[in-house]
Amino acid sequence: MIKLELDRKKRSLSVKEPADVSSLQNGFYGQMKKGIIYLAPEEALYIMDIRNGRCFDEVGNEYSFNSVAALFLKIKKLLARYLTYKDYRDKGLILRDAKEAEGGYGRTVLKKYAGGSFKFDSFAFEGLFFPQDLLTLVDDEKVGKELYERYWIGQFGTYKAAHRGRISKLDVYETIFLLKHGGLHLTNAKLHDVEKTARKRIKFFDDMYLVYEDWRRRGYVVKTGFKFGTHFRIYFPGASPVRAEDEWMHSRHVIHNFPRKHKLLISEWARAIRVAHSVKKTFILAIPGKKAAIKVDPKKPRLDFLLYHRRKDGIETPKDGTPRYLMYSLTEDEYIGGEGLAEALAEARHYGLEMMMAISDRESSVTYYIIKEIELPGSEYEYYEIEWLQP
Amino acid sequence: MIKLELDRKKRSLSVKEPADVSSLQNGFYGQMKKGIIYLAPEEALYIMDIRNGRCFDEVGNEYSFNSVAALFLKIKKLLARYLTYKDYRDKGLILRDAKEAEGGYGRTVLKKYAGGSFKFDSFAFEGLFFPQDLLTLVDDEKVGKELYERYWIGQFGTYKAAHRGRISKLDVYETIFLLKHGGLHLTNAKLHDVEKTARKRIKFFDDMYLVYEDWRRRGYVVKTGFKFGTHFRIYFPGASPVRAEDEWMHSRHVIHNFPRKHKLLISEWARAIRVAHSVKKTFILAIPGKKAAIKVDPKKPRLDFLLYHRRKDGIETPKDGTPRYLMYSLTEDEYIGGEGLAEALAEARHYGLEMMMAISDRESSVTYYIIKEIELPGSEYEYYEIEWLQP
Repeated sequence: MIKLELDRKKRSLSVKEPADVSSLQNGFYGQMKKGIIYLAPEEALYIMDIRNGRCFDEVGNEYSFNSVAALFLKIKKLLARYLTYKDYRDKGLILRDAKEAEGGYGRTVLKKYAGGSFKFDSFAFEGLFFPQDLLTLVDDEKVGKELYERYWIGQFGTYKAAHRGRISKLDVYETIFLLKHGGLHLTNAKLHDVEKTARKRIKFFDDMYLVYEDWRRRGYVVKTGFKFGTHFRIYFPGASPVRAEDEWMHSRHVIHNFPRKHKLLISEWARAIRVAHSVKKTFILAIPGKKAAIKVDPKKPRLDFLLYHRRKDGIETPKDGTPRYLMYSLTEDEYIGGEGLAEALAEARHYGLEMMMAISDRESSVTYYIIKEIELPGSEYEYYEIEWLQP
Repeated sequence: MIKLELDRKKRSLSVKEPADVSSLQNGFYGQMKKGIIYLAPEEALYIMDIRNGRCFDEVGNEYSFNSVAALFLKIKKLLARYLTYKDYRDKGLILRDAKEAEGGYGRTVLKKYAGGSFKFDSFAFEGLFFPQDLLTLVDDEKVGKELYERYWIGQFGTYKAAHRGRISKLDVYETIFLLKHGGLHLTNAKLHDVEKTARKRIKFFDDMYLVYEDWRRRGYVVKTGFKFGTHFRIYFPGASPVRAEDEWMHSRHVIHNFPRKHKLLISEWARAIRVAHSVKKTFILAIPGKKAAIKVDPKKPRLDFLLYHRRKDGIETPKDGTPRYLMYSLTEDEYIGGEGLAEALAEARHYGLEMMMAISDRESSVTYYIIKEIELPGSEYEYYEIEWLQP
C-alpha cells in the first residue's frame, strides 16, 4: 500500500512515508521537495488504480479513486491525459509533464522530399465538361494519349488498360490545372464555371486544389486516392503509367487534406489514416494555406507529456537520458483542427522533439501516431507524415 | 466500323446496316424496331469508344464522341452512367436500362440475424461523469467487474488486461444505456446533462444512440469500432470478454451509422467500408429512425441498369436468363443520403433483385458493392450488409 495524503485546501496530493517516497522516486513519479513527493493528478490516479495507492485527507477520511478524480474535474481532458499516461506507463516507459520540457533535444525529424518541376509542352486542345459528374472528356485521341503517357494526366482509354478505348477522362483537379497551366479549352464552360461547380460539390475545394497544384508543380503525379480512402495518392517525379513496372509504378504515398480552419472528430481523422496504413501507404497530412506564426508559451504547453522511450539496453529515464517525444493526449470523441495540429507540431519542433499523438478510444485502448514534418522544396504549405506506432 | 445515324431533331441514335444490326443484336444493345436498332446514349457512346462506331447526321456530317455526348449533357449523371456501363460491359457482361425491369425475379437476399434480448439484474451503483472526455468511471470494483464480465459493458481494468487496475470505464453510450436501463447514478450529472454534452460533441448523437440501444436490447454486445474506422463493432448474443477464446470472442461485424436525413460524399462513405473490408469485417450500414413509406414508380427508376451476371457455363443474357442486380451508378464525388439509399434499396426489393452500387472514381476505375438487407428480429430500423464485390 502506498499512502497518498490529500491537502483539501491546496488540492495537493503528496507521499511522505520514506519507503513509498523512495519507491516513487525510483519510478520517476512526482516532484520531490524536502523529502516529500508531490504528485500530479494523473500520477496520483495511476498509483491508486495500479499500484495499490490509498488516499486520506488531513483528518483521516479515505478518498476513493472517483473522489480524488472529482477534485480535478475542471482540468481539461483529464481522462484523455490519465488514460494515455496509464497506457504509456503500463508499457514500462517513463513520462513526465510537458511543462518540464527544456528544449534543445535535437530530435525533430524532417523528412526531405525530392523537389522537381513540371515542364509542360504547350498545345491547345478541347474538352467537354460534365458538371454533374465533375469530369472532362477529351476525344482527341492523340492529345489524350500524350497527356496520359507523358504527364500521367487524365485516364486515357480504360483504367489499367489504356489501349482499350480512345477517350481521355480528366478529373476536376486536372481540368482546372490544364485550364490554368495547359492548353485546355472547354467547349461548354469557363474556368470560373468549373470552379463554381466544384466548390458547390466538394467541401474545401479550393484547399483541395491548392494541394493538388502544389505537388503537381513540383513534378509529382497526383491521382485520386479513392481506393485508399484518401483524397489523393502521389507518385514521385518521373513516374509514368507506361514505363515497365519499376519502383516508380506503385504509389506508396497518399495525401489527405486537413483545412487549417476546420475541425474534425478524431475518429474521422483516424479513419483515413487507418485505410492508408492497412494498404501499407505512407499517410501525408496536408495543411494548405500560409503557415501562421505560432508562439510557443513554455508555461502553457499545448502538449501533454514529455516521453522517454527505449534504448538498446533498456529504457531512457530523466536521470540518465533525454526525452524523445511530446505526447498529444486525445480521446476518439475529441475534435482536432488543422490549426490546432499545426500549433501542437510547432511546439514539438520548438523543443526539438518528435510529436506523438496518443488516442484513447472509448474502451481506453490507446493508439499511437508519430508525426514527422515534410520538407517539400519550394512549397509554402505544411505537410506531415503520419505513422502508426507501437511504442 | 459500326455506323451510327443521328436524328438531330429527335436526338435519337440508330443503326441500320444489316451487319451492324445483327452484331449489336447479338450483343444485346439497343431496342429493335422494324429492323432498326435504337441506342440509348450510353450504348452509343460505348460503341463509339470501344467498338469503332462512327456517328453521322442526316446530311452526312460526322459527330465526334464529345459532340454526341454534348447532346445528352442534361441527362442526370450521364458520365456516372456511361463509365459504370462501360466497366460492366468490359467485363463481358450484359446490362440493360433499369426501365426494362419487370419484377418477380425473386433474387432479393435477406440476411437473418439472431434475435435475443438483454436481461439485466438490477443493482444500484455510482459513477463519475467526465463531460470533456465523454466517459464515466465506476470505482466500485465489484460492480465494474460484474458489468464487464457478465454484460461486457465498460472496460474493467485495462484493455486486453482486465486484471490490471480496478476502475471501470463506461463510454457515453454505455453511460446513457445504464442510466436508462441499469442502476447507474452519476454523482455529478443527470441523464439530461450527459445527453446534452454528447449532442454538442458528436454529430447525430441521438441517431448513434438509437443504433447502440437497438442492438444492445437484442442481446448483442456493442463496443467502439475505432480500430476498424467505424462507429461500432458488435458481437453476437452470448459473447463474453472472459470466456476462453472461441468463435464469439472475435467481432466480425462493424456498424456504421448513416442518418436518414444526412448526405455524405461517396468517397467519405466508401472510406468507412474500405477499412472494414481490409480487416475482414462485415460492414453493416445502419439507417436509424422509422422506415419511410416508399413508392416505386416503374417509369422513373432511381436505379440505373438491370444487370445480367454469370452462370456456371457462361453469362446470363436477356434471351435465356434473368437479371440478378439493379445497378446504382455513382461517381466518387457524388453525394448519397440515408433516405436516398433506402429508396434505392426499396426499388431493388420491389423488383426482386439485389442492389449493386457501382462507383466510378476520378480515374474511371469502378468499385462494386453489393447491398443486402438485414432482418434483425424486433428492430424497426433499417440495416444493410455491404460487401465489396468483383463482378
